[in-house]
Amino acid sequence: MAIQKPGIPKGTRDFSPTEMGRRNYLFDTIKSVFRRYGFAPLETPSMEHLSTLLGKYGEEGDKLLFKVLNSGNFLKEVGSSELLAASENGNPVAIGNKICEKGLRYDLTVPFARYVVQHRDELVFPFKRYQIQPVWRADRPQKGRYREFCQCDVDVVGSESLLHEAELIQIVQDVFAALKIRVVLKLNNRKILYGIAETIGHADKMTEITVAIDKLDKIGLEAVNEELAGRGLSAEAIGRLQPILQLSGNNREKVDAITRIIGDCSETGRKGIDEVTTLLDYLDAIEVALPVELDLSLARGLNYYTGAIFEVKALDFPIGSICGGGRYDNLTGIFGLPNTSGVGISFGADRIYDVLSGLNLFPEEAAESVRALFANFGGKEEIGAFRLLTDVRRAGVAADLYPEAAKMKKQFDYAQKRGIRYMVFVGETEMESRCATVKNLHTGEQHTVPFDETADFLNR
Amino acid sequence: MAIQKPGIPKGTRDFSPTEMGRRNYLFDTIKSVFRRYGFAPLETPSMEHLSTLLGKYGEEGDKLLFKVLNSGNFLKEVGSSELLAASENGNPVAIGNKICEKGLRYDLTVPFARYVVQHRDELVFPFKRYQIQPVWRADRPQKGRYREFCQCDVDVVGSESLLHEAELIQIVQDVFAALKIRVVLKLNNRKILYGIAETIGHADKMTEITVAIDKLDKIGLEAVNEELAGRGLSAEAIGRLQPILQLSGNNREKVDAITRIIGDCSETGRKGIDEVTTLLDYLDAIEVALPVELDLSLARGLNYYTGAIFEVKALDFPIGSICGGGRYDNLTGIFGLPNTSGVGISFGADRIYDVLSGLNLFPEEAAESVRALFANFGGKEEIGAFRLLTDVRRAGVAADLYPEAAKMKKQFDYAQKRGIRYMVFVGETEMESRCATVKNLHTGEQHTVPFDETADFLNR
Repeated sequence: MAIQKPGIPKGTRDFSPTEMGRRNYLFDTIKSVFRRYGFAPLETPSMEHLSTLLGKYGEEGDKLLFKVLNSGNFLKEVGSSELLAASENGNPVAIGNKICEKGLRYDLTVPFARYVVQHRDELVFPFKRYQIQPVWRADRPQKGRYREFCQCDVDVVGSESLLHEAELIQIVQDVFAALKIRVVLKLNNRKILYGIAETIGHADKMTEITVAIDKLDKIGLEAVNEELAGRGLSAEAIGRLQPILQLSGNNREKVDAITRIIGDCSETGRKGIDEVTTLLDYLDAIEVALPVELDLSLARGLNYYTGAIFEVKALDFPIGSICGGGRYDNLTGIFGLPNTSGVGISFGADRIYDVLSGLNLFPEEAAESVRALFANFGGKEEIGAFRLLTDVRRAGVAADLYPEAAKMKKQFDYAQKRGIRYMVFVGETEMESRCATVKNLHTGEQHTVPFDETADFLNR
Repeated sequence: MAIQKPGIPKGTRDFSPTEMGRRNYLFDTIKSVFRRYGFAPLETPSMEHLSTLLGKYGEEGDKLLFKVLNSGNFLKEVGSSELLAASENGNPVAIGNKICEKGLRYDLTVPFARYVVQHRDELVFPFKRYQIQPVWRADRPQKGRYREFCQCDVDVVGSESLLHEAELIQIVQDVFAALKIRVVLKLNNRKILYGIAETIGHADKMTEITVAIDKLDKIGLEAVNEELAGRGLSAEAIGRLQPILQLSGNNREKVDAITRIIGDCSETGRKGIDEVTTLLDYLDAIEVALPVELDLSLARGLNYYTGAIFEVKALDFPIGSICGGGRYDNLTGIFGLPNTSGVGISFGADRIYDVLSGLNLFPEEAAESVRALFANFGGKEEIGAFRLLTDVRRAGVAADLYPEAAKMKKQFDYAQKRGIRYMVFVGETEMESRCATVKNLHTGEQHTVPFDETADFLNR
């Protein structure tokens, strides 16, 4: 067989042992917080029926789905005239959907909704789950955007209680505290956004207003106003929107201001204000230390949110939002279970990784795979080292024996290249005295350590 | 949009929180052993170039690859006459390979070989990695056979040292000891199998002999002899094979017998015997307690093995091999890195799960996602409970607050259905005395526990 030049599909990644060590540190930290808050792990298949995925992510999303070719004679359902037509007009989407019954997971939300509906009779509600799995999108790859990447979602469905919003904010606090990343959480409520649209007489244009407001940070007030005018808002309506776009003060002051503006114009708006007030009360009661900032310009893209919305930004590193989510009232409707409210957030693993990396916050141990290398002198000493190694490993120390009696320089080099901290020597003298010689390769220090204390010594 | 009946592709699985808890217990146990032995985690992309996968798993394997449809106009490279021909003769394989440039990972071995060659200049050899990721095969689904399943591989490449064989056997010992599964490890060496073929004058028929011998357990001596005759072995050769097929005694006795049989007839055979002897010496020296049985009828299907081969069976549960592997001398050759010896084993996660399940060996905690449910009395007491809950969670206890002030029966039912052990009550009295009432739902016992001792109490 011809020799093949090895490579991987664009937009995908290998994760080396060092990267894996750091990713595991990140995911383990997140998982341990999720678990404390009563969320249980769930996993769904990588492949879903294509029909489960199609139409859930908009037209653009449909194009970005990876489709899996049917096994066997995949052309058998396709007529030859259909084939020829598609081949000629260069638009084989319909055929793609015939020759592929399955697609790769595009996010974790739709499979979760599908799972909840499919297992509704076995589940106990409120159902709290976290899910950390890769998703696939046929996006054009670029820096920071991959075709395979890990999502990290935590959701509770089947309860309208705002306690869940509060505990999700605690989770954000605990995760980033554990990771030592300073963040701010921006908070808003879709009902308030609707209330604003209703108040300025444009309830029908809530989406347009929301989309424009969402850009305030990026394009500035003037451009937002222009966009609003372009989207058909009257000058009067835009005028009434200004105090909201320029709201300032602390959270309670903002709530008061927006309460005055909405007045009796919107029942939904009032409900949103009540929700935010209750949530802020909870956060005060449980003494949340995380900076939480009510930001009425926060809209978030996804249209399924119906209540609270969140977004988290790192304070010390320039990168987009690293975590976000909100409450949705009808996620499971499309699969036949209406009126099931849920709330959840998603941690952007790749971006958080970049923040940890950029701020040099990964603990040194995260990338360490082996703590000690036992030198190999061959013969009787090799056996002596192998025995001590066995004891040390059994005590939980990650350790290795150089696999052959090579020159000592080669063995040292190996330890250094792997970033191993300790080198352990069991030669003739050591076997007689039952004391190993342990050299710290980082500091150069050398110690004589009794065999039965070696594991403890290395574990320190 | 029409309501869709939810379901998943056949041969795939959702893993519920209970199953995930058990799977995590299994994988965490395996990983912690791998790490102690100096193996570092590696992950490769789910999709590989189809050319990386094709031709690596035999003709049958090629058919079982899941192919991923190219994005955009996937038909553009295919001529219409080619399309029509394929559509008519019902054999669109060539077209499948044109409209799909990517395929889903079929195992972890080929991507590992691809990784090693691609990153040969950054890696330090011997390179020790473990990899636990799903693989996909378009097999006909049946009981215990899935289209998506997790493989769990540990390999070292770049060293011929038999120390690695010994440490892999230690890993098997430690993993199954930790899981409390009693197992036997069967051991053989491909060089001995070749030596046998050479000795009986049929070096050219090593594969046929191996395949037939491999069936000894399943079809019996007579049928194996018939098959050998059918495959063109002379009666004399079959006769010379009999003492080997009927070898008995302990490992050292078997080694002596096979040494006598092979004599000076096969240098390769002698080398295999030396390897087994060295390995048995290592196992004695490090006092491996795992039953290791030299079994000359063990052949293993995969043709790339060239030295030691292993297979592990559960002693108390009727299921095929739950773990296996061996040494290979040229895995990376196809990708341009010849003569790189490696050795590895693979743990059959689904089968091991079935053994643990069948023998009731999963620890109770593995499926437990929440340890305590705090009752919700609403109002001031809700806040009191939420505060204590926050402390308890911060101390590492997985706990929940019922999200609304529902009837107590409903809250109890919820705790019971989720299998939660403790229910914690913070009512008016409790808030005054700063002592929670904790009820053990498994035993019915009730305790009064000071707030600042509640976390410790629940953690016990």
